[in-house]
Amino acid sequence: MVPTVFWFIPIAGILALLFARILYVQMKKKDPGNERMQEIAGLVQEGAMAYLRQQYKVVAIVFLVTSIFFAIAAYSLNLMSRYTPFSFLTGGVFSALAGYVGMLAATHAASRVARAAQDSLNAGLQVALRGGAVLSFGVVGFALLDVSIWFYILNYFFQGDPQSKMLTITTIMLTFGMGASLQALFARVGGGIFTKAADMGADLVGKNDAGLAEDDPRNPAVIADNVGDNVGDVAGMGADLYESYAGAILAAAALFASSSQGLSLDTQTKYVLLPMIIGGLGVIFSIISLFIVKAKNSSGMKELVGSINNGIWLSSVLIAGATFVVTSQLGLQNWLGLSLSVTLGLLVGVVIGVWVNYQTSQDYQPTQRVAESAATSSATVITSGLELGMNSTSVPVIAVCIGMVGAFFCASGFSLSVSNIAQGLSGIAMAAVGMLANLGFVLATDAFGAIADNAGGNAEMAKLPGHVRQRTDMLDAVGNTTAATGKGFAIGSAALTAMALLASYVEEIKLALLRKGDINLVINNQEVPLAKANILDLVNYYQVHAMNPKFIVGAFIGAMAVLVFIGLTTGAVSKVAKKMVAEVRRQFSNPRILDGSESPEYQRCIQISTQGAQRAMIIPALLAVITPIITGVFLGVAGVMGLLLSAMTTGFGMAVFLANAGGAWDNAKKYIEEGHLGGKGSAAHKAAVIGDMVGDPCKDTSGPALNILIKLMSMVAIVTAGITILF
Amino acid sequence: MVPTVFWFIPIAGILALLFARILYVQMKKKDPGNERMQEIAGLVQEGAMAYLRQQYKVVAIVFLVTSIFFAIAAYSLNLMSRYTPFSFLTGGVFSALAGYVGMLAATHAASRVARAAQDSLNAGLQVALRGGAVLSFGVVGFALLDVSIWFYILNYFFQGDPQSKMLTITTIMLTFGMGASLQALFARVGGGIFTKAADMGADLVGKNDAGLAEDDPRNPAVIADNVGDNVGDVAGMGADLYESYAGAILAAAALFASSSQGLSLDTQTKYVLLPMIIGGLGVIFSIISLFIVKAKNSSGMKELVGSINNGIWLSSVLIAGATFVVTSQLGLQNWLGLSLSVTLGLLVGVVIGVWVNYQTSQDYQPTQRVAESAATSSATVITSGLELGMNSTSVPVIAVCIGMVGAFFCASGFSLSVSNIAQGLSGIAMAAVGMLANLGFVLATDAFGAIADNAGGNAEMAKLPGHVRQRTDMLDAVGNTTAATGKGFAIGSAALTAMALLASYVEEIKLALLRKGDINLVINNQEVPLAKANILDLVNYYQVHAMNPKFIVGAFIGAMAVLVFIGLTTGAVSKVAKKMVAEVRRQFSNPRILDGSESPEYQRCIQISTQGAQRAMIIPALLAVITPIITGVFLGVAGVMGLLLSAMTTGFGMAVFLANAGGAWDNAKKYIEEGHLGGKGSAAHKAAVIGDMVGDPCKDTSGPALNILIKLMSMVAIVTAGITILF
Repeated sequence: MVPTVFWFIPIAGILALLFARILYVQMKKKDPGNERMQEIAGLVQEGAMAYLRQQYKVVAIVFLVTSIFFAIAAYSLNLMSRYTPFSFLTGGVFSALAGYVGMLAATHAASRVARAAQDSLNAGLQVALRGGAVLSFGVVGFALLDVSIWFYILNYFFQGDPQSKMLTITTIMLTFGMGASLQALFARVGGGIFTKAADMGADLVGKNDAGLAEDDPRNPAVIADNVGDNVGDVAGMGADLYESYAGAILAAAALFASSSQGLSLDTQTKYVLLPMIIGGLGVIFSIISLFIVKAKNSSGMKELVGSINNGIWLSSVLIAGATFVVTSQLGLQNWLGLSLSVTLGLLVGVVIGVWVNYQTSQDYQPTQRVAESAATSSATVITSGLELGMNSTSVPVIAVCIGMVGAFFCASGFSLSVSNIAQGLSGIAMAAVGMLANLGFVLATDAFGAIADNAGGNAEMAKLPGHVRQRTDMLDAVGNTTAATGKGFAIGSAALTAMALLASYVEEIKLALLRKGDINLVINNQEVPLAKANILDLVNYYQVHAMNPKFIVGAFIGAMAVLVFIGLTTGAVSKVAKKMVAEVRRQFSNPRILDGSESPEYQRCIQISTQGAQRAMIIPALLAVITPIITGVFLGVAGVMGLLLSAMTTGFGMAVFLANAGGAWDNAKKYIEEGHLGGKGSAAHKAAVIGDMVGDPCKDTSGPALNILIKLMSMVAIVTAGITILF
Repeated sequence: MVPTVFWFIPIAGILALLFARILYVQMKKKDPGNERMQEIAGLVQEGAMAYLRQQYKVVAIVFLVTSIFFAIAAYSLNLMSRYTPFSFLTGGVFSALAGYVGMLAATHAASRVARAAQDSLNAGLQVALRGGAVLSFGVVGFALLDVSIWFYILNYFFQGDPQSKMLTITTIMLTFGMGASLQALFARVGGGIFTKAADMGADLVGKNDAGLAEDDPRNPAVIADNVGDNVGDVAGMGADLYESYAGAILAAAALFASSSQGLSLDTQTKYVLLPMIIGGLGVIFSIISLFIVKAKNSSGMKELVGSINNGIWLSSVLIAGATFVVTSQLGLQNWLGLSLSVTLGLLVGVVIGVWVNYQTSQDYQPTQRVAESAATSSATVITSGLELGMNSTSVPVIAVCIGMVGAFFCASGFSLSVSNIAQGLSGIAMAAVGMLANLGFVLATDAFGAIADNAGGNAEMAKLPGHVRQRTDMLDAVGNTTAATGKGFAIGSAALTAMALLASYVEEIKLALLRKGDINLVINNQEVPLAKANILDLVNYYQVHAMNPKFIVGAFIGAMAVLVFIGLTTGAVSKVAKKMVAEVRRQFSNPRILDGSESPEYQRCIQISTQGAQRAMIIPALLAVITPIITGVFLGVAGVMGLLLSAMTTGFGMAVFLANAGGAWDNAKKYIEEGHLGGKGSAAHKAAVIGDMVGDPCKDTSGPALNILIKLMSMVAIVTAGITILF
């Protein structure tokens, strides 16, 4: 039934999960440190798990309701495929599993990293990196497994015209992408609200009012802050990248199904499997890369960053090379163009990563200039951060544009003509797949920073010797720097995947019309058989052009949806943060807590963040789900495409702006804390802290959630295409 | 040659200018106050005029260079009409004239308002309102005169096919819109940088560091601050609305020329003249409305606001009604639909105005909530302002969308089919014309606030009795409130005009192809004679649809251009502000200035703002001009339309965001200053001042400039269409 090469995909998935399991067991065997360290780690773990359980409960209800709605639409009204309700559910469940496993590992790792760092820097690095790799290989493994299981099932049970087999299968599989996206949005928004509210509470009252140091155990919000790092930066990021990874693969598969129409079923299947195979190869390359990362005790930032960057380079080069080999070995006609698209995609990711690092690292002028403006007042530090963020959108947008046009050009037989549109678009999707193929490695290097951060908190609260904190701080800083490259890949792939999903939407509209029983389209007074209609025919039929008022109105709404989404998520953070501040102030009114003779009530703070995040994440998620449906009902296909296009372009720009402004404010503060411009406690430092607080929800809640939003809206539009064509 | 009804337009223009002249003479006859008041007014006037002269010099060079470039393109390369270089120049010159006249009046009015307010509130109101009306009637008069003169000339000299006569004339006239837009961008950006840099310098050092009151004469930046109000809020706003007003009329005329293709030349001419006639009627209604505004000495805010709002209502209703009469009397076929479009446009403007007022006035919850968050810290006041701004985009966008679809529906024979596209679009353009027709009145009610503000400064520095300042403050506050309605019209019309210009771009592409000598277009393998091709044919020919990668890349660049423009303009303000802060600190190091025994060097501060603004306004303006040209060269027509569409949707959303966030921060501060939450000098007040400083460049520089940017980019694309089709 399936070609032999298919089996490589689930095997790679299982390999990734096995590898994650081995790393987990290895990590657990390490010394968890003294009693106090274990106690603190236990508190953080308990809080994090309690939060995740609570979040999954809410999300489960949302998924259940949505599935029932889908089941009615599918079984009673024939508006979508009968597999959709289940496919949608598995996307959410597997994503949740990956996040859970990753966070479990991260919370166990923290005290062990602190303990290992007591011995040597390299020991700490290895434990942290392996802890992070549990998340990354969990994400990759579960995604590949989910993709391959669904492919196998749908392939096995498919009945009907073989020519439309791959198209039908891949479009159904996109609904599992919607499950993953929705879960990711909840994880990012919920986790982001939790962590930033706790952070602001801890900083504003603990640091600024009471003058406590970071991670001082007398601060009632300190455990919530550490829990937040786990639910936001580990579980949230895991779900986010699960969605990106699966989304890129699914979008590419769907476009290959479209572009290979007319070829033999065998060839079509090969094309569709290609992105999954690249993903599987990425697992192997990521494992290899992980083993080349080493540190000496004498290593400085430079060596550590260099060592990790070598790993990223190695895996990227291997993936680029492997694409040439695999595509030519599979006998795919446009193998050269496709492979060049992947190389181009990787280059775009690297360019964005380098740029993000240049803009937001305190080693370079732009962020230093933000720091300098802190010397004038907190108003100027805010203004110059906004300026940096806005201006910094230029290079990523131009890079993505060049990557898009270039990949299209290469993949469609070295031409920019839209007659080969599906081929060209599949090149764009492949560029995104290439960027994310080494996720197993890249995500690990990102997550280990969060673990090191927590280890530092653990060391501080357990009063370990100073050099431990120094080492974990260095690991944290390394994680921040290497994360820039990961961010480049994540940001770049989001734009390319969203672009590919736009085309998948058109394909799904066609399938929905076929399901409805339509046979012909009348385009420019000519009858075109629906089964043979391509993307351009449908675009013409629905008048999806720049002069259709429905398209334009859709575009206005898309830009607005992005801005309102930012408003809602930012607002949610400040609402919960306000409650947190009040609670911390209330506890500090008891002098026995401040003098350390009584332990603060950590649980109250955790509860505030948990409940606040649960409530506040619902409305933004609803906005993402309902906007495409309502637009479809009122403005039809043209309106929806206007919405998606504009949400993509505005959302991408705003995501880059929020990430970079937030990053620059954060690091401008660190720059001052390193002793520049008066150092800690100076007026400049206080102004920079304000900047950091404004930036926190930007870079850790609204910004990353936007990358998910633009894909989720496309996914929702795809899944509910059957409803749109009714009106 | 021209129909008799044409003569109404220049006559209305001259009437407006005469009325402005009468008001100016009346105002000048008022008592200019004591010697000290005159001295201060003289300083402000001198600084403002010096700035304007300097700015006009720079702009003149830019215009000259651009005209030469256009002349080469027109006369040597046949890439644009031979009238373009001149038409472009007059747009800039007339706009500059209007701004100059308005500012001359405003600077003369300030001390007279202060003097009159000494006698009674009504006296102050009347002088201020008449001072503002010199600007508004100057704007309207010069615009109508410029439009009608060009129409007459082009109509007289036209040679060629009568069927294409109106289309050709109106498209050439659009280039005068480009001149007006470019001049407006310089005025808004330059003036905005000047005023906000001076404001920040005066506030940060004078108020916060030295503890001086607003408008304390010991503050070296105080005169620059007052000059800034004139060059930013009077001259800048005048040029801005000149551009909006002329742009709306020209875009509507161009669309009428397109939609009336095939009808008799006589009917075509009537359609083209319709928007200008509505503008002319607006002059008369505005004059009437101005006379019903009255105040008693006992009048409170409510009565004053009510009196002015009555004027706005009266003129709006008169315009809506007149459209029904004029269109039916002219015998226009779709008179009912067109008139309904105008009514709808006015309603949209009112809805946006009410919403803006609700969001940004300290009388309502949203802004009060921002003020309350100031009690927590300056970080939360920033975050909650951002939240308010982002969320507040919802209603304006939805209102504009409903207005757009509704106007299209009404004007195209009560249908949403795109087969009547030009008719539908002309309805959208007419809605914009309707919104701006009563500009003579609305702009006066906006500008009088700025004059009252300056009068307050004058009273303060001349140490007039307290009740004078109270009265001018009240007039200022009234101006801020009634300005909301004006803003609603300006914002709404910008979106609708930009939309209409998108269609004009397509028409101009057709004319450019004809100029180049093309005869047929091959669309879907069918030959369509170019002369008969309509907007949809061209859109199909250039594949301006949502799946064309060039269109999509253009859209990405459009969103980016908006964000970078915001970054550049905000950055310019903080750059100049930093210099200003340093200068004020330097002067304060002389203790004789602070104890009042030595007069500060006001000139140095004025110089810093003037030079800084000149330098900093060049790059953002260049971005606006060059982006559409480069996009056209590399990505063709589809790319340019993607750019314009996306700049319009993102730019509109961001403009609303910036205006409302800035407005809310400003009024949150005022709310606290009124005595809430601890009042002046409290921690909440300090935090709110930070918010206000962050908001200043948003609401007075970047935000309003965005409305111009989106139209200027369209105008540039239209004028350089001949270059785009070469590639």
